[in-house]
Amino acid sequence: MDNKAFFDLTYGIFLIGAGSGGKMNACITNTVMQVAASPTRVTLSCINGNYTPELIKAGKCFTVGIVDETADYGYIENFGMKHGRDLDKFEGYDVKYDVNGMPYLTDHVCAVLSCKVVSEEDLGTHTLFIAEVVDAVKVADNSPLTYADYFAKVKPRKDETKDERKIIGWKCRICGFTVDGPELPEDYRCPLCDHPRSDFEPIYEE
Amino acid sequence: MDNKAFFDLTYGIFLIGAGSGGKMNACITNTVMQVAASPTRVTLSCINGNYTPELIKAGKCFTVGIVDETADYGYIENFGMKHGRDLDKFEGYDVKYDVNGMPYLTDHVCAVLSCKVVSEEDLGTHTLFIAEVVDAVKVADNSPLTYADYFAKVKPRKDETKDERKIIGWKCRICGFTVDGPELPEDYRCPLCDHPRSDFEPIYEE
Repeated sequence: MDNKAFFDLTYGIFLIGAGSGGKMNACITNTVMQVAASPTRVTLSCINGNYTPELIKAGKCFTVGIVDETADYGYIENFGMKHGRDLDKFEGYDVKYDVNGMPYLTDHVCAVLSCKVVSEEDLGTHTLFIAEVVDAVKVADNSPLTYADYFAKVKPRKDETKDERKIIGWKCRICGFTVDGPELPEDYRCPLCDHPRSDFEPIYEE
Repeated sequence: MDNKAFFDLTYGIFLIGAGSGGKMNACITNTVMQVAASPTRVTLSCINGNYTPELIKAGKCFTVGIVDETADYGYIENFGMKHGRDLDKFEGYDVKYDVNGMPYLTDHVCAVLSCKVVSEEDLGTHTLFIAEVVDAVKVADNSPLTYADYFAKVKPRKDETKDERKIIGWKCRICGFTVDGPELPEDYRCPLCDHPRSDFEPIYEE
Protein backbone atom coordinates (compact mmCIF):
# COMPACT_ATOMS: atom_id res chain seq x y z
CA MET A 1 0.00 0.00 0.00
CA ASP A 2 1.58 3.25 -1.16
CA ASN A 3 0.08 6.04 0.95
CA LYS A 4 1.28 8.63 -1.57
CA ALA A 5 -1.48 7.40 -3.90
CA PHE A 6 -4.06 9.03 -1.62
CA PHE A 7 -2.47 12.45 -2.07
CA ASP A 8 -3.71 12.37 -5.69
CA LEU A 9 -7.36 12.48 -4.63
CA THR A 10 -8.77 15.95 -5.29
CA TYR A 11 -10.72 17.84 -2.61
CA GLY A 12 -12.07 21.29 -1.86
CA ILE A 13 -11.89 23.12 1.48
CA PHE A 14 -15.06 23.63 3.48
CA LEU A 15 -16.15 25.54 6.58
CA ILE A 16 -18.63 23.30 8.41
CA GLY A 17 -20.96 25.06 10.87
CA ALA A 18 -23.16 23.31 13.43
CA GLY A 19 -24.98 24.00 16.66
CA SER A 20 -27.17 22.39 19.32
CA GLY A 21 -28.51 23.32 22.75
CA GLY A 22 -27.30 26.92 22.57
CA LYS A 23 -23.76 25.92 21.58
CA MET A 24 -22.21 26.27 18.17
CA ASN A 25 -18.92 25.64 16.43
CA ALA A 26 -17.28 25.47 13.03
CA CYS A 27 -14.40 23.51 11.57
CA ILE A 28 -12.47 23.14 8.33
CA THR A 29 -12.70 19.92 6.36
CA ASN A 30 -11.92 18.71 2.84
CA THR A 31 -14.52 15.95 2.72
CA VAL A 32 -17.77 17.15 1.17
CA MET A 33 -19.17 15.95 -2.15
CA GLN A 34 -22.53 15.71 -3.85
CA VAL A 35 -23.58 12.08 -4.11
CA ALA A 36 -27.18 12.19 -5.38
CA ALA A 37 -29.74 14.43 -7.09
CA SER A 38 -33.53 14.71 -6.52
CA PRO A 39 -33.32 15.03 -3.56
CA THR A 40 -29.84 16.52 -3.60
CA ARG A 41 -27.59 14.79 -1.13
CA VAL A 42 -24.04 15.32 0.03
CA THR A 43 -21.65 13.34 2.18
CA LEU A 44 -19.44 14.81 4.89
CA SER A 45 -16.78 12.90 6.81
CA CYS A 46 -15.63 14.17 10.24
CA ILE A 47 -12.99 12.93 12.68
CA ASN A 48 -14.57 11.26 15.69
CA GLY A 49 -14.00 13.07 18.97
CA ASN A 50 -14.01 16.55 17.46
CA TYR A 51 -16.56 19.11 18.64
CA THR A 52 -18.31 19.93 15.36
CA PRO A 53 -19.39 16.33 14.53
CA GLU A 54 -20.63 16.03 18.13
CA LEU A 55 -22.86 19.08 17.53
CA ILE A 56 -23.98 17.67 14.14
CA LYS A 57 -24.98 14.39 15.79
CA ALA A 58 -27.00 16.34 18.39
CA GLY A 59 -28.56 18.92 16.07
CA LYS A 60 -28.88 16.74 12.91
CA CYS A 61 -28.05 19.73 10.70
CA PHE A 62 -24.97 21.57 9.41
CA THR A 63 -23.90 24.23 6.96
CA VAL A 64 -21.21 23.83 4.31
CA GLY A 65 -19.40 27.04 3.40
CA ILE A 66 -17.38 26.42 0.24
CA VAL A 67 -14.14 28.23 1.10
CA ASP A 68 -12.83 30.34 -1.77
CA GLU A 69 -9.47 31.58 -3.00
CA THR A 70 -9.67 34.75 -0.85
CA ALA A 71 -9.13 32.76 2.37
CA ASP A 72 -5.82 33.36 4.14
CA TYR A 73 -3.88 31.14 6.51
CA GLY A 74 -5.23 32.92 9.60
CA TYR A 75 -8.78 32.02 8.63
CA ILE A 76 -7.92 28.34 8.03
CA GLU A 77 -5.86 28.27 11.22
CA ASN A 78 -8.68 29.74 13.32
CA PHE A 79 -11.38 27.34 12.15
CA GLY A 80 -9.22 24.35 11.26
CA MET A 81 -6.54 24.13 13.92
CA LYS A 82 -8.11 25.43 17.13
CA HIS A 83 -10.45 23.65 19.50
CA GLY A 84 -14.01 24.96 19.70
CA ARG A 85 -14.52 23.44 23.14
CA ASP A 86 -11.92 25.86 24.52
CA LEU A 87 -12.72 29.09 22.67
CA ASP A 88 -15.31 30.80 20.48
CA LYS A 89 -13.97 30.46 16.93
CA PHE A 90 -16.67 32.84 15.67
CA GLU A 91 -15.40 35.75 17.79
CA GLY A 92 -14.95 38.81 15.59
CA TYR A 93 -17.02 37.32 12.74
CA ASP A 94 -20.52 38.31 11.65
CA VAL A 95 -22.30 34.98 12.15
CA LYS A 96 -25.45 34.31 10.11
CA TYR A 97 -28.00 31.52 10.58
CA ASP A 98 -29.57 29.37 7.87
CA VAL A 99 -33.10 27.92 7.51
CA ASN A 100 -32.23 25.23 10.06
CA GLY A 101 -30.84 27.75 12.55
CA MET A 102 -27.29 26.59 11.85
CA PRO A 103 -24.40 29.11 11.87
CA TYR A 104 -22.48 30.11 8.76
CA LEU A 105 -20.21 32.88 7.52
CA THR A 106 -20.10 34.74 4.24
CA ASP A 107 -16.42 35.62 4.79
CA HIS A 108 -14.11 33.84 2.33
CA VAL A 109 -16.80 31.45 1.04
CA CYS A 110 -18.30 31.49 -2.46
CA ALA A 111 -21.39 29.39 -1.65
CA VAL A 112 -23.25 27.97 1.35
CA LEU A 113 -25.25 24.72 1.51
CA SER A 114 -27.83 24.05 4.26
CA CYS A 115 -27.86 20.36 5.10
CA LYS A 116 -30.13 18.03 7.10
CA VAL A 117 -28.63 14.72 8.20
CA VAL A 118 -30.36 11.69 6.66
CA SER A 119 -28.05 9.04 8.11
CA GLU A 120 -24.70 8.66 9.80
CA GLU A 121 -22.24 5.79 9.73
CA ASP A 122 -19.42 5.28 12.21
CA LEU A 123 -16.30 4.32 10.25
CA GLY A 124 -13.97 4.00 13.25
CA THR A 125 -11.71 7.03 12.93
CA HIS A 126 -14.44 9.12 11.27
CA THR A 127 -18.22 9.43 11.04
CA LEU A 128 -19.73 9.70 7.56
CA PHE A 129 -22.85 11.86 7.39
CA ILE A 130 -25.26 11.61 4.46
CA ALA A 131 -27.38 14.76 4.32
CA GLU A 132 -30.08 16.32 2.18
CA VAL A 133 -29.33 19.82 0.92
CA VAL A 134 -32.42 21.91 1.74
CA ASP A 135 -31.01 25.26 0.62
CA ALA A 136 -28.04 26.49 -1.42
CA VAL A 137 -26.90 30.08 -1.85
CA LYS A 138 -24.18 31.65 -3.99
CA VAL A 139 -22.27 34.21 -1.91
CA ALA A 140 -19.45 35.34 -4.20
CA ASP A 141 -18.06 34.77 -7.68
CA ASN A 142 -14.58 33.90 -6.42
CA SER A 143 -13.17 30.51 -7.38
CA PRO A 144 -13.36 27.78 -4.75
CA LEU A 145 -10.11 26.96 -2.96
CA THR A 146 -8.89 23.42 -3.65
CA TYR A 147 -7.04 21.34 -1.10
CA ALA A 148 -4.03 21.28 -3.45
CA ASP A 149 -4.08 25.08 -3.78
CA TYR A 150 -4.28 25.44 -0.02
CA PHE A 151 -0.97 23.61 0.32
CA ALA A 152 0.59 25.32 -2.71
CA LYS A 153 -0.55 28.90 -2.13
CA VAL A 154 -2.12 29.47 1.31
CA LYS A 155 -0.17 27.38 3.82
CA PRO A 156 3.12 29.12 4.75
CA ARG A 157 6.16 27.38 3.30
CA LYS A 158 8.69 25.88 5.64
CA ASP A 159 11.27 28.63 5.12
CA GLU A 160 8.64 31.29 5.82
CA THR A 161 7.84 29.69 9.14
CA LYS A 162 11.50 29.23 10.06
CA ASP A 163 11.07 31.80 12.76
CA GLU A 164 11.93 32.23 16.40
CA ARG A 165 8.94 30.32 17.70
CA LYS A 166 9.55 27.27 19.86
CA ILE A 167 8.09 23.95 18.70
CA ILE A 168 6.18 22.26 21.55
CA GLY A 169 4.45 19.48 19.61
CA TRP A 170 3.40 18.06 16.26
CA LYS A 171 -0.01 17.67 14.65
CA CYS A 172 -1.02 15.24 11.91
CA ARG A 173 -2.61 17.33 9.19
CA ILE A 174 -4.49 14.28 7.92
CA CYS A 175 -6.39 13.25 11.05
CA GLY A 176 -5.54 15.90 13.65
CA PHE A 177 -3.64 13.57 16.01
CA THR A 178 -1.14 15.50 18.18
CA VAL A 179 2.16 14.53 19.82
CA ASP A 180 3.86 16.53 22.58
CA GLY A 181 7.52 17.55 22.43
CA PRO A 182 9.87 19.38 20.06
CA GLU A 183 11.27 16.38 18.18
CA LEU A 184 9.54 13.83 15.94
CA PRO A 185 11.62 10.88 14.66
CA GLU A 186 12.09 10.69 10.87
CA ASP A 187 10.40 7.28 10.68
CA TYR A 188 7.46 8.31 12.87
CA ARG A 189 4.01 7.31 11.60
CA CYS A 190 0.68 8.59 12.90
CA PRO A 191 -0.74 5.97 15.29
CA LEU A 192 -4.27 7.00 14.31
CA CYS A 193 -4.18 7.23 10.50
CA ASP A 194 -0.74 5.76 9.70
CA HIS A 195 0.43 8.78 7.66
CA PRO A 196 4.18 9.50 7.68
CA ARG A 197 6.10 12.23 9.50
CA SER A 198 5.92 14.48 6.43
CA ASP A 199 2.21 14.91 7.13
CA PHE A 200 2.88 16.38 10.56
CA GLU A 201 3.16 20.10 11.15
CA PRO A 202 4.73 21.79 14.16
CA ILE A 203 2.70 23.21 17.04
CA TYR A 204 4.39 26.38 18.27
CA GLU A 205 4.45 27.84 21.76
CA GLU A 206 1.81 30.62 22.00
CA MET B 1 -32.07 26.88 -3.95
CA ASP B 2 -29.39 28.21 -6.29
CA ASN B 3 -28.06 25.24 -8.26
CA LYS B 4 -24.97 27.23 -9.25
CA ALA B 5 -23.76 26.80 -5.65
CA PHE B 6 -23.09 23.13 -6.36
CA PHE B 7 -20.69 23.99 -9.19
CA ASP B 8 -18.29 25.30 -6.52
CA LEU B 9 -17.77 21.84 -5.03
CA THR B 10 -14.33 20.54 -6.02
CA TYR B 11 -13.87 17.06 -7.47
CA GLY B 12 -11.30 14.93 -9.24
CA ILE B 13 -11.89 12.64 -12.22
CA PHE B 14 -11.73 8.89 -11.75
CA LEU B 15 -11.76 5.78 -13.92
CA ILE B 16 -13.81 3.18 -12.04
CA GLY B 17 -13.22 -0.46 -13.06
CA ALA B 18 -15.41 -3.40 -12.06
CA GLY B 19 -16.22 -6.92 -13.12
CA SER B 20 -18.32 -9.95 -12.24
CA GLY B 21 -19.22 -13.28 -13.84
CA GLY B 22 -16.74 -12.90 -16.70
CA LYS B 23 -17.97 -9.43 -17.61
CA MET B 24 -16.18 -6.18 -16.95
CA ASN B 25 -16.60 -2.49 -17.55
CA ALA B 26 -15.22 0.91 -16.60
CA CYS B 27 -16.72 4.36 -16.29
CA ILE B 28 -15.68 7.92 -15.49
CA THR B 29 -16.92 9.57 -12.31
CA ASN B 30 -16.01 12.59 -10.17
CA THR B 31 -17.28 11.19 -6.88
CA VAL B 32 -14.52 9.47 -4.92
CA MET B 33 -13.11 10.69 -1.63
CA GLN B 34 -11.31 9.25 1.36
CA VAL B 35 -13.63 9.27 4.38
CA ALA B 36 -11.76 7.32 7.06
CA ALA B 37 -8.31 6.03 8.06
CA SER B 38 -7.31 2.76 9.80
CA PRO B 39 -8.84 1.02 7.92
CA THR B 40 -8.71 3.41 4.99
CA ARG B 41 -12.12 3.88 3.46
CA VAL B 42 -13.42 5.75 0.45
CA THR B 43 -16.88 6.59 -0.83
CA LEU B 44 -17.98 6.31 -4.46
CA SER B 45 -21.33 7.49 -5.82
CA CYS B 46 -22.69 6.01 -9.07
CA ILE B 47 -25.82 6.73 -11.10
CA ASN B 48 -28.37 3.95 -10.71
CA GLY B 49 -29.07 2.00 -13.88
CA ASN B 50 -25.55 2.29 -15.25
CA TYR B 51 -23.55 -0.85 -16.00
CA THR B 52 -20.50 -0.29 -13.78
CA PRO B 53 -22.43 0.08 -10.46
CA GLU B 54 -24.39 -3.07 -11.45
CA LEU B 55 -21.07 -4.94 -11.73
CA ILE B 56 -19.85 -3.42 -8.44
CA LYS B 57 -23.01 -4.62 -6.67
CA ALA B 58 -22.45 -8.11 -8.07
CA GLY B 59 -18.68 -8.34 -7.56
CA LYS B 60 -18.39 -6.22 -4.37
CA CYS B 61 -15.09 -4.75 -5.55
CA PHE B 62 -13.86 -1.96 -7.81
CA THR B 63 -10.72 -0.10 -8.82
CA VAL B 64 -10.28 3.67 -8.73
CA GLY B 65 -7.84 5.01 -11.32
CA ILE B 66 -7.06 8.63 -10.44
CA VAL B 67 -7.13 10.22 -13.90
CA ASP B 68 -4.24 12.61 -14.48
CA GLU B 69 -3.58 15.70 -16.57
CA THR B 70 -2.35 13.64 -19.54
CA ALA B 71 -5.89 12.41 -20.30
CA ASP B 72 -7.43 13.71 -23.53
CA TYR B 73 -11.06 14.11 -24.51
CA GLY B 74 -11.11 10.84 -26.47
CA TYR B 75 -10.20 8.91 -23.32
CA ILE B 76 -12.89 10.62 -21.22
CA GLU B 77 -15.41 10.21 -24.05
CA ASN B 78 -14.67 6.49 -24.43
CA PHE B 79 -15.03 5.62 -20.74
CA GLY B 80 -17.44 8.35 -19.66
CA MET B 81 -19.92 8.76 -22.49
CA LYS B 82 -20.33 5.34 -24.05
CA HIS B 83 -22.37 2.42 -22.83
CA GLY B 84 -20.47 -0.64 -21.67
CA ARG B 85 -23.45 -2.91 -22.23
CA ASP B 86 -23.18 -2.25 -25.97
CA LEU B 87 -19.43 -2.31 -26.55
CA ASP B 88 -16.09 -3.21 -24.97
CA LYS B 89 -14.68 0.08 -23.68
CA PHE B 90 -11.36 -1.63 -22.94
CA GLU B 91 -10.74 -2.53 -26.61
CA GLY B 92 -7.27 -1.36 -27.61
CA TYR B 93 -6.14 -0.89 -23.99
CA ASP B 94 -3.74 -3.05 -22.01
CA VAL B 95 -6.04 -4.11 -19.15
CA LYS B 96 -4.43 -5.11 -15.85
CA TYR B 97 -6.08 -6.81 -12.87
CA ASP B 98 -5.70 -5.95 -9.19
CA VAL B 99 -5.56 -8.13 -6.05
CA ASN B 100 -9.34 -8.56 -6.22
CA GLY B 101 -9.26 -9.51 -9.92
CA MET B 102 -10.78 -6.16 -10.89
CA PRO B 103 -9.72 -4.45 -14.14
CA TYR B 104 -7.71 -1.22 -14.24
CA LEU B 105 -5.56 0.75 -16.65
CA THR B 106 -2.26 2.54 -16.14
CA ASP B 107 -2.98 4.83 -19.12
CA HIS B 108 -3.59 8.46 -18.06
CA VAL B 109 -3.86 7.64 -14.35
CA CYS B 110 -1.37 8.67 -11.66
CA ALA B 111 -2.54 6.22 -8.98
CA VAL B 112 -4.81 3.19 -8.58
CA LEU B 113 -6.79 2.17 -5.48
CA SER B 114 -8.14 -1.37 -5.00
CA CYS B 115 -11.43 -1.22 -3.12
CA LYS B 116 -13.69 -3.77 -1.40
CA VAL B 117 -17.28 -2.71 -0.79
CA VAL B 118 -18.19 -2.50 2.91
CA SER B 119 -21.71 -1.18 2.47
CA GLU B 120 -23.96 0.39 -0.14
CA GLU B 121 -26.84 2.82 0.27
CA ASP B 122 -29.48 3.52 -2.36
CA LEU B 123 -29.99 7.30 -2.53
CA GLY B 124 -32.64 7.25 -5.26
CA THR B 125 -30.82 8.61 -8.29
CA HIS B 126 -27.47 7.20 -7.14
CA THR B 127 -25.99 4.41 -5.03
CA LEU B 128 -23.33 5.37 -2.49
CA PHE B 129 -20.67 2.71 -1.94
CA ILE B 130 -18.46 2.75 1.15
CA ALA B 131 -15.36 0.66 0.49
CA GLU B 132 -12.14 -0.35 2.21
CA VAL B 133 -8.97 0.34 0.26
CA VAL B 134 -6.97 -2.89 0.32
CA ASP B 135 -4.18 -1.74 -2.00
CA ALA B 136 -2.93 1.56 -3.41
CA VAL B 137 -0.28 2.03 -6.11
CA LYS B 138 1.36 5.14 -7.56
CA VAL B 139 1.53 4.82 -11.33
CA ALA B 140 2.91 8.19 -12.50
CA ASP B 141 4.08 11.52 -11.11
CA ASN B 142 1.66 13.55 -13.25
CA SER B 143 -0.77 15.84 -11.46
CA PRO B 144 -4.32 14.56 -11.02
CA LEU B 145 -6.93 16.05 -13.34
CA THR B 146 -9.56 18.05 -11.47
CA TYR B 147 -13.18 18.25 -12.59
CA ALA B 148 -12.74 22.01 -13.07
CA ASP B 149 -9.63 21.49 -15.24
CA TYR B 150 -11.47 18.92 -17.31
CA PHE B 151 -14.03 21.57 -18.29
CA ALA B 152 -11.43 24.33 -18.68
CA LYS B 153 -8.73 22.43 -20.54
CA VAL B 154 -9.83 19.00 -21.79
CA LYS B 155 -13.44 19.30 -22.95
CA PRO B 156 -13.59 20.90 -26.42
CA ARG B 157 -14.95 24.44 -26.36
CA LYS B 158 -18.17 25.17 -28.14
CA ASP B 159 -16.49 26.93 -31.09
CA GLU B 160 -14.12 23.99 -31.52
CA THR B 161 -17.06 21.62 -31.79
CA LYS B 162 -19.01 23.90 -34.13
CA ASP B 163 -18.49 21.39 -36.87
CA GLU B 164 -20.52 19.65 -39.51
CA ARG B 165 -21.87 16.98 -37.20
CA LYS B 166 -25.63 16.70 -36.80
CA ILE B 167 -27.03 17.00 -33.26
CA ILE B 168 -29.45 14.14 -32.57
CA GLY B 169 -29.96 14.59 -28.81
CA TRP B 170 -28.76 16.14 -25.57
CA LYS B 171 -27.13 14.60 -22.52
CA CYS B 172 -27.09 16.02 -18.99
CA ARG B 173 -23.46 16.09 -17.92
CA ILE B 174 -24.50 16.05 -14.26
CA CYS B 175 -26.57 12.87 -14.15
CA GLY B 176 -26.37 11.40 -17.65
CA PHE B 177 -30.05 11.82 -18.54
CA THR B 178 -30.56 12.01 -22.32
CA VAL B 179 -33.18 13.72 -24.51
CA ASP B 180 -33.79 12.90 -28.19
CA GLY B 181 -33.95 15.57 -30.89
CA PRO B 182 -31.77 18.43 -32.18
CA GLU B 183 -33.35 21.28 -30.16
CA LEU B 184 -33.48 21.86 -26.41
CA PRO B 185 -35.55 24.84 -25.13
CA GLU B 186 -33.57 27.59 -23.33
CA ASP B 187 -35.56 27.09 -20.09
CA TYR B 188 -35.25 23.30 -20.15
CA ARG B 189 -34.29 21.67 -16.87
CA CYS B 190 -33.18 18.07 -16.38
CA PRO B 191 -36.19 16.05 -15.15
CA LEU B 192 -33.85 13.78 -13.20
CA CYS B 193 -31.44 16.15 -11.42
CA ASP B 194 -33.03 19.53 -12.12
CA HIS B 195 -29.89 21.06 -13.61
CA PRO B 196 -30.38 23.75 -16.27
CA ARG B 197 -29.93 23.55 -20.05
CA SER B 198 -26.37 24.86 -19.75
CA ASP B 199 -25.43 21.51 -18.20
CA PHE B 200 -26.52 19.59 -21.28
CA GLU B 201 -24.13 18.69 -24.04
CA PRO B 202 -25.07 17.70 -27.58
CA ILE B 203 -25.11 14.10 -28.76
CA TYR B 204 -23.90 13.95 -32.36
CA GLU B 205 -24.88 11.54 -35.11
CA GLU B 206 -22.20 8.85 -35.42
